[in-house]
Amino acid sequence: MKIAIVIGSTISSIKDRAIMDTKLLVCQPADETGKQIGKPYVAIDLVDAGTGDLVLTCHGSAARQTPITKDTPTDAVIMAVIDHLELDGDIVYKMS
Amino acid sequence: MKIAIVIGSTISSIKDRAIMDTKLLVCQPADETGKQIGKPYVAIDLVDAGTGDLVLTCHGSAARQTPITKDTPTDAVIMAVIDHLELDGDIVYKMS
Amino acid sequence: MKIAIVIGSTISSIKDRAIMDTKLLVCQPADETGKQIGKPYVAIDLVDAGTGDLVLTCHGSAARQTPITKDTPTDAVIMAVIDHLELDGDIVYKMS
Amino acid sequence: MKIAIVIGSTISSIKDRAIMDTKLLVCQPADETGKQIGKPYVAIDLVDAGTGDLVLTCHGSAARQTPITKDTPTDAVIMAVIDHLELDGDIVYKMS
Amino acid sequence: MKIAIVIGSTISSIKDRAIMDTKLLVCQPADETGKQIGKPYVAIDLVDAGTGDLVLTCHGSAARQTPITKDTPTDAVIMAVIDHLELDGDIVYKMS
Repeated sequence: MKIAIVIGSTISSIKDRAIMDTKLLVCQPADETGKQIGKPYVAIDLVDAGTGDLVLTCHGSAARQTPITKDTPTDAVIMAVIDHLELDGDIVYKMS
Repeated sequence: MKIAIVIGSTISSIKDRAIMDTKLLVCQPADETGKQIGKPYVAIDLVDAGTGDLVLTCHGSAARQTPITKDTPTDAVIMAVIDHLELDGDIVYKMS
Repeated sequence: MKIAIVIGSTISSIKDRAIMDTKLLVCQPADETGKQIGKPYVAIDLVDAGTGDLVLTCHGSAARQTPITKDTPTDAVIMAVIDHLELDGDIVYKMS
Repeated sequence: MKIAIVIGSTISSIKDRAIMDTKLLVCQPADETGKQIGKPYVAIDLVDAGTGDLVLTCHGSAARQTPITKDTPTDAVIMAVIDHLELDGDIVYKMS
Repeated sequence: MKIAIVIGSTISSIKDRAIMDTKLLVCQPADETGKQIGKPYVAIDLVDAGTGDLVLTCHGSAARQTPITKDTPTDAVIMAVIDHLELDGDIVYKMS
């Protein structure tokens, strides 16, 4: 799974019917301290995440192992909101 | 899903029979503001996209979860045209 | 799908039995104008491509959606030879 | 499989129900000598690994080929703890 | 498939039961001339490869299309040893 920050959302009136009612959020990859790195991508939200949340996203066929995304053209979902990250016993990120 | 801009098309007279009637578009990855980044790739168009459109593409086995691409050697499809992208409450991209 | 140029071939006397009779070509990724970029990889040829051809390759489980590669340890196939690439109405590559 | 060092853990109270009881560890990719390289990711622990362990992780649909992760939105698992790595007859890493 | 050189092996006493009896080799990606590039990874050996061999590895679900790896948490296998690589009619690599 990737660590990412939700930075926005995307609206599409023209999209594949199977994902018509899903929420598409723009995710920015982050490192283990919550610092933003790498290129943004779009994931379907499964856990009611919002802008600024640090989340976990899973990719590929893993993204279709849920009732919402089964058999849909989906390759990325947000499947967890991170409460805190702990490195070597220290909490380096905590949800505000 | 990746954010990408449609920049062109590709014509192939010799191709696997299963994808003979599909439209193959050249996509340029873009960041969350629509700025072009990274390497181009080719995706099968599911939503009648055209050159200049900002689109979402999905990859891997996700690309075969549609009637057009089921059981075909396809690893990327355009499954949405983006109307607008919103970051922190600001609209940073709007379809013209 | 990736755009690539066929640059050579690879011969293996020791290989998994399921792919014993396949043709393994070395592919060099290319951008939308046919210029070589990135790292080479090896793909099974489905369309009788030759050295110098600009081709489309598909990857992952997509590569096994053909009678030749079904149920084999294959993760990349050449599934089209590109005749021409068109960008913004201009033909930027044409098969010679 | 990737070589990685376990550097921490992540706690999520909001997560997809199917992975509610799994342990999510932060992994830092490492090279063949155990030196840290690249971007961190999160994997579900199958082998009771701990911080500082050099491990092997597998990715994609491979990560769901276990009783714990079957049919869950999981794309990375820790499936082995490395005892030692041998290069050209020399042991370059040994678990302490 | 990727071109890679086998550079070593990895021993794990703690690993997922399904891959308990497999040989895990450290592979270094190589370019089309056999020159080492990129980051090492670990693959299950299907063809009795040894240190120094130039091999082909396949990745993702492709790695489980063999009797040894079926239904196991495996995402990379060595499925061929390269005898020689030919570029533009010239042999640029030959197994010694």
